[in-house]
Amino acid sequence: MSATLRLALLLLAVAVCQGYQSNDIDEEDELVYEPSKYGSLWPLPQKVRVSEVSFKLPSASFKIVDAKESSAGPSCSLLQNAYRRYYEYMFGSVRKPGYVKSRAAGPSEISELQVWITSADSECDSYPSLTSDESYELTVDQPNAVLKASKVWGALRGEKNINSTTISDFPRFAHRGILLDTSRHFLPIKVILANLEAMAMNKFNVFHWHIVDDPSFPYLSRTFPQLSQQGAYHPYTHVYTPADVKMIIEFARLRGIRVIPEFDTPGHTQSWGKGQKDLLTPCYSGTTPSGTFGPVNPILNTTYSFMRQLFSEISSVFPDAYVHLGGDEVDFSCWRSNPDIQNFMEQQGFGQDYSKLESFYIQKLLDIVTTTQKGYMIWQEVFDNGVKLKPDTLIHVWKGNQQQYKDEMANITSAGYHTLLSTPWYLNRISYGQDWQGVYRADPQDFKGTEAQKKLVIGGEACLWGEYVDATNLTPRLWPRASAVAERLWSAKEVTDISDAYSRLSMHRCRLVERGIPAEPLFTSFCPHEYKGV
Amino acid sequence: MSATLRLALLLLAVAVCQGYQSNDIDEEDELVYEPSKYGSLWPLPQKVRVSEVSFKLPSASFKIVDAKESSAGPSCSLLQNAYRRYYEYMFGSVRKPGYVKSRAAGPSEISELQVWITSADSECDSYPSLTSDESYELTVDQPNAVLKASKVWGALRGEKNINSTTISDFPRFAHRGILLDTSRHFLPIKVILANLEAMAMNKFNVFHWHIVDDPSFPYLSRTFPQLSQQGAYHPYTHVYTPADVKMIIEFARLRGIRVIPEFDTPGHTQSWGKGQKDLLTPCYSGTTPSGTFGPVNPILNTTYSFMRQLFSEISSVFPDAYVHLGGDEVDFSCWRSNPDIQNFMEQQGFGQDYSKLESFYIQKLLDIVTTTQKGYMIWQEVFDNGVKLKPDTLIHVWKGNQQQYKDEMANITSAGYHTLLSTPWYLNRISYGQDWQGVYRADPQDFKGTEAQKKLVIGGEACLWGEYVDATNLTPRLWPRASAVAERLWSAKEVTDISDAYSRLSMHRCRLVERGIPAEPLFTSFCPHEYKGV
Repeated sequence: MSATLRLALLLLAVAVCQGYQSNDIDEEDELVYEPSKYGSLWPLPQKVRVSEVSFKLPSASFKIVDAKESSAGPSCSLLQNAYRRYYEYMFGSVRKPGYVKSRAAGPSEISELQVWITSADSECDSYPSLTSDESYELTVDQPNAVLKASKVWGALRGEKNINSTTISDFPRFAHRGILLDTSRHFLPIKVILANLEAMAMNKFNVFHWHIVDDPSFPYLSRTFPQLSQQGAYHPYTHVYTPADVKMIIEFARLRGIRVIPEFDTPGHTQSWGKGQKDLLTPCYSGTTPSGTFGPVNPILNTTYSFMRQLFSEISSVFPDAYVHLGGDEVDFSCWRSNPDIQNFMEQQGFGQDYSKLESFYIQKLLDIVTTTQKGYMIWQEVFDNGVKLKPDTLIHVWKGNQQQYKDEMANITSAGYHTLLSTPWYLNRISYGQDWQGVYRADPQDFKGTEAQKKLVIGGEACLWGEYVDATNLTPRLWPRASAVAERLWSAKEVTDISDAYSRLSMHRCRLVERGIPAEPLFTSFCPHEYKGV
Repeated sequence: MSATLRLALLLLAVAVCQGYQSNDIDEEDELVYEPSKYGSLWPLPQKVRVSEVSFKLPSASFKIVDAKESSAGPSCSLLQNAYRRYYEYMFGSVRKPGYVKSRAAGPSEISELQVWITSADSECDSYPSLTSDESYELTVDQPNAVLKASKVWGALRGEKNINSTTISDFPRFAHRGILLDTSRHFLPIKVILANLEAMAMNKFNVFHWHIVDDPSFPYLSRTFPQLSQQGAYHPYTHVYTPADVKMIIEFARLRGIRVIPEFDTPGHTQSWGKGQKDLLTPCYSGTTPSGTFGPVNPILNTTYSFMRQLFSEISSVFPDAYVHLGGDEVDFSCWRSNPDIQNFMEQQGFGQDYSKLESFYIQKLLDIVTTTQKGYMIWQEVFDNGVKLKPDTLIHVWKGNQQQYKDEMANITSAGYHTLLSTPWYLNRISYGQDWQGVYRADPQDFKGTEAQKKLVIGGEACLWGEYVDATNLTPRLWPRASAVAERLWSAKEVTDISDAYSRLSMHRCRLVERGIPAEPLFTSFCPHEYKGV
């Protein structure tokens, strides 16, 4: 490569994605798109100091190595995998010149990045958890850059940079999730893996797998294989086998991502009924069964023995300490129509209050899940209905307008429960224009409450429900809009400058594109290397 | 493949994309999704009769051949290309069983599809035009199916079907277009070709190439190479070379698609100014030039000699009989600020009416383009401003709410001009839910006017402006939403049943997916063969 061409590429790199302001046919507010002093860093680290001094990263000789003092050595395959991944991001393409602009005669070289895990137990072979330490410190200086972290999880979060840089970083919230829905549309494994990859690039650490729901049951259960045989869109091509699930969990673990499955009951279970006789409530039309079915039947013993076996399997298949039990949107009309349910209500003294029946069911389910040693997440309705919950229950807020969800967060935390927020982050809902800005402005601690209440907020999740997305459009619809959530959940509360965010996020999205993720554009712009697919 | 497996696949094929009605987290109207009696036909042919009798298509022996009497033989490479394409759609994958349900013991075979071009001049080596005959007749019966068309363009529109079928078909409108914008984001050639392919599958026949605009000038002009050298996002990676343009035009021609380029002036030309000195109007701040530029400078002779040379080149590069000259959204503030422009206005007696200056410019431009023997399309403002237009001018309606665009269509046609509609089909504008339904309901002849006025409507175009789309998300955003426009423009006016359309369109989108086009889902559903990309 000639010096001139190198220079051209260099200038091009500087010009990346600055975005034109021409905007004639829509009504977008025009932003002033100044480059950020933080370059393309996303999500913004807690403390970062970038100096003017820049270094060359020689692709031929540059190495990522375990520091001498590190508690995780070459036998830690999690780190070795991460080194390969990052090495390929840095030098995987001939298109990237190995150095950046230098003020002096010629830039000095950084020959090594030393990765130093300081805690005696690196947690290399563990699964990430709600309490994992994800902090790290990065120093880029001659002759070596050093990435210091207490545990491997911190090392996975380390930013690379090529100016002389010091970063000291840790997440604001411990739970930073993405919900994908594999029931309304089946998502091929390739799509799930690509999105786990993108999640890692955005420091997300929870994959909330809304694996089954009314439309289809793609989870292949060893205990109840008929659930997917009858309930999946197709029994072979539209299911997740035990091997698939295992692979997804390990792929996620290597990236510091937890996998929390959701088996939502007693509503959202139409597909369950196809493979499990008597599980759902028969609805009645007058005095005769109508042939349709409602929520899980809460009055039969067989229901609870089924749940006991199923959740016993789930608790061993999914290593995470939490399982999501759903509990949202139970429609009472079918229960109301059924004479056996009516009798049961009378026996129990529930009157006409079907939320008491719902609570009756949920209470028994929670007791079952508790015996599997798992903690549980539930949608807010379960709290709203006054079900008795373990103190470590995570209550997931998803409903209401801005005022309503803030009130809900206040109520939950004033009752002493942990909570996480999704309401403003239903990314399946789309609108014309730069809707990432509204997403970015929402803050999960922005409600009326004491400091102690705020501390009960463990984070949030971006949700991409499946009505309108499948393999054809999921990835560009999610990214980089979910990146806005990523920064809100990782970076300091004060990081709220939309213009600075626009500049960094534009470059960050081009980085995602260059790494093969079809992240859609924020606005009129270009990337030096456009997406190669169709 | 075993008989049982075949049966399973068969049943699966019947179940394709019927769509669940579960819809808990949004407010969609629930549709009753009955299968259509027309199966997956899209756009619906003008006359179709499908009988219960079904035939087998034996992949080993089935052939597409030129009928003995056909005026287009093996030397017609357009048809030979089409045969290959359709053969691959039909048998390209082992996944497709070669026959459909049969009532009798075993289905009979169709061994040949004979393609019979009846007109003495098949137009095989021509370009499609506004007046091309696209009608065809298809008869599927033993032992041969026959596709009869006057010209090759009709043969390209022929549907395949495997029940005994007679189709007699022709388009309702002659101009059925898609606008893509390669200025706000550069679109790699691969993306353009994939979308031409999808257009052919939806019987679109015009690619309106909005090739340049304010943000970038990717058209590599032989006469003025500096326009893209300076005005493209990148002079090598983000341009369309003459060879690229030629290839796109031929790829389109083979599919019966015209390519109409738009070189929009005098507004929307910021990128032109980078490579062409003195082309744009210098804006003033008080008495001194501000350093920014406005629309094309209409008072310099150099402007018109530049346009003469540029449009001379364009008229030879693009074979279509029409070129789109833009003319929309001219901002007068810069003209107003410039003392030389003010003087000129005074000289000409234009007073303070800058639309007169705009008309002055457009009038001269139209005269220039007329000398190149091309017809022109222009955006509605040119008509609104009272510019004198040739009788064969096509006026493109894009503005206003429903009432306003209907009034505009009425005004244009009552003045005797031909028109086409885009206002309800700005597919770049997105909203949550099944917005294809609103797109589908719009009708370009639905305005107050005489029959003679209605006949002046030549069709319409779906527009996908480029602010928010590039290679990462364009294709799924456009398809199958543009398919709704395709049926409106091809099929009979009376074809308006949303529920029937939902059923056929769901299957049609799965067919697009199976052929490699990542068309997004309409709603909760599945395809037998999901998209393989990410």
